[in-house]
Amino acid sequence: MRAIHAQCILCAAKYELTKLYTCEKCGGILDVIYDYHGLSKLNKAAFPGMWAYMELLPVRDPRSVISLGEGWTPLLSVPRLGENLNLNLYVKNETVEPTGSFKDRPISVAVSKARELGAKTVTTSSSGNAGASVAAYAARAGLECYIFVPASVPQDKLTQIRMYGAQVVQVGGEFSNAYHIAKEISERRGWSNLTSTFASPYPTEANKTVAYELWEQLQGELPDWILIPIASGPLLVGMYKGFCELKEIGLITKIPRFIGVQAEGCAPIVRAFMTGTKVVAWERTETIASGISDSLAGYEQDGDYTLWAIKQSNGYAIAVSDQELIRASQDLARLEGIYAETTGAASIAAVEKLMAMKIIKPTELVVSVVTGSGFKDNASYGKTLPDLPVVSSVEEAERLIDAK
Amino acid sequence: MRAIHAQCILCAAKYELTKLYTCEKCGGILDVIYDYHGLSKLNKAAFPGMWAYMELLPVRDPRSVISLGEGWTPLLSVPRLGENLNLNLYVKNETVEPTGSFKDRPISVAVSKARELGAKTVTTSSSGNAGASVAAYAARAGLECYIFVPASVPQDKLTQIRMYGAQVVQVGGEFSNAYHIAKEISERRGWSNLTSTFASPYPTEANKTVAYELWEQLQGELPDWILIPIASGPLLVGMYKGFCELKEIGLITKIPRFIGVQAEGCAPIVRAFMTGTKVVAWERTETIASGISDSLAGYEQDGDYTLWAIKQSNGYAIAVSDQELIRASQDLARLEGIYAETTGAASIAAVEKLMAMKIIKPTELVVSVVTGSGFKDNASYGKTLPDLPVVSSVEEAERLIDAK
Repeated sequence: MRAIHAQCILCAAKYELTKLYTCEKCGGILDVIYDYHGLSKLNKAAFPGMWAYMELLPVRDPRSVISLGEGWTPLLSVPRLGENLNLNLYVKNETVEPTGSFKDRPISVAVSKARELGAKTVTTSSSGNAGASVAAYAARAGLECYIFVPASVPQDKLTQIRMYGAQVVQVGGEFSNAYHIAKEISERRGWSNLTSTFASPYPTEANKTVAYELWEQLQGELPDWILIPIASGPLLVGMYKGFCELKEIGLITKIPRFIGVQAEGCAPIVRAFMTGTKVVAWERTETIASGISDSLAGYEQDGDYTLWAIKQSNGYAIAVSDQELIRASQDLARLEGIYAETTGAASIAAVEKLMAMKIIKPTELVVSVVTGSGFKDNASYGKTLPDLPVVSSVEEAERLIDAK
Repeated sequence: MRAIHAQCILCAAKYELTKLYTCEKCGGILDVIYDYHGLSKLNKAAFPGMWAYMELLPVRDPRSVISLGEGWTPLLSVPRLGENLNLNLYVKNETVEPTGSFKDRPISVAVSKARELGAKTVTTSSSGNAGASVAAYAARAGLECYIFVPASVPQDKLTQIRMYGAQVVQVGGEFSNAYHIAKEISERRGWSNLTSTFASPYPTEANKTVAYELWEQLQGELPDWILIPIASGPLLVGMYKGFCELKEIGLITKIPRFIGVQAEGCAPIVRAFMTGTKVVAWERTETIASGISDSLAGYEQDGDYTLWAIKQSNGYAIAVSDQELIRASQDLARLEGIYAETTGAASIAAVEKLMAMKIIKPTELVVSVVTGSGFKDNASYGKTLPDLPVVSSVEEAERLIDAK
């Protein structure tokens, strides 16, 4: 392990790698600092998937690792979608992670770290995907598990979480209510709170592996743009850090430009990007994209950190409508056979808009990270489809086919 | 490509590799024959996942390949489940395939082959999983697609299929009704029927790759037993053939023993195994495991082929109850964080029974192939869970937690 300590991104205070949560002195987000000395390539550990990059993850002992084989997801060229958009477009397909979303990466690290630090009970507040991940990895680790979800979480996500045997607490109102109640109770009871935002320094580190994989899968080519659906944005920050590390150790010379995509009904980071101000919590979230429906109330600094990474990369931030999200998920499924939740397709929805704005140009190499499976929104998608008739003979079937 | 021709398993008639469906002379199943001359290892093509083994798949041109990154699924040691069962147990986790089931392997081959042969419209009859695969790969290939499903297919599977843009025809009654109507209409209209049973020689070949992967992932160790949920059984036959090929080219010296698992409410192959007779169609299928609820009416010879492979491997066949299926899927999720559909967990449900029968012994190395994702049964699982209260304060949440 090359991780040496955690360090506050605001006041630079240093902490041992046993430290959970944020800076004691100023409340700032903690970042994990590594010693890259003598490193000139990505060394591979004897793990499949993401944990092959264990050297650059903040877990010391391979025996602590709780893995379901997360990572090394396909990078798919999407020529039919790309042709529609007149673009050299790739999808990094995180829908095939063990529990169906990219959250399996940070949560695999978070649960492994919690176990290394002796946790008995883990918890998280989650709009659904992180909850499923924590429940699954806690099950595999044999840890007790409580998941706090907003009452608006889709039934499909809830069923999955409960099947892993986790105790679920549904909290009324905005997602941030669930966040604060989980935080308070885990402090009172000494539970390990694995909220996969920037509340703890460890999970975000896992998102670096998406950058490493992209670099390996593109065989040294670099994307001009990487589009990512963001709530508070740890995936974007983690990937940005991953590319910075590749540059630091001399494997690349430039950093791709990052585009954070939010929903029009909940776009605190996009608003701050556009107005050139700090992030202010969103007033009333209203979007079908449950995975990125997060007002950031009470942890606005998480949004500022993501905004910083976007600007550092000379990137962009954009909001898309619910209608554009639905169309993008339909296009992904109908043209390329990739079934994404509406949240996950935000990185596709934004591409057409950004091309119309001439921010993305036709010759560029663009990677959209599709963050979660369509199964997560299956019931909602089902409601949009008309009823189907039942036939009982070849003739009836032929009539039905010809009527279309 | 080392495939040289297709050959009838009954009368040995030979056909070009453009031949679809079964033997013209006797109606027998066609098998693909390869030239293994000079082969002493598994050569890898420049594809990720299953298509790395393209040399031993029946598709000639790499440009014909329609892939979503299927294959190279995790082989997971499941120590907590294994401890319960007193066994060295592994799960080959096919739930993380692109559309959520192992069918992505055979259908990737079937759609690639259909495209190579110039098909414009593809179809299949499916209890759900193969339908989702055909719909997804047809979408990616830009082919028109019709899916015939029994009316009993879970809503979740149906939604997924429809999201890929396929036209769905629901057929009343047993699965075999959908099978026969699809067959008739595709003959009338010249559609390419990709039914992933043994109706065509090509899809089954893809299932060999599960064997190759197991061999690579176990680094030369061989499982004593491999358990597989089976309807007609192409996964079992394909994996058996894969191990025979590894033996043929000198990489292994013995073949693992295969156990076919069916549901008590639909177990035509198990019944034939027990009674030492040929397979007879099941009278009235009645099981929650929709993926293996197939009477085999009209294609009983498919069951005989699978039965042959089981016997050749010195294997076994066993049926499990719906209750055992539900418990196995709960155990998988709660102990190991693997979310499987009830069908997919059949290979787990059978382990305990077979240990009690002393067929599987505690020291043995056992691999259970878990064939499909829990998302496929999400709505059904949801119905089994009690309603959850909604809380709005820390105190309410604490009362709820303490009440448990």
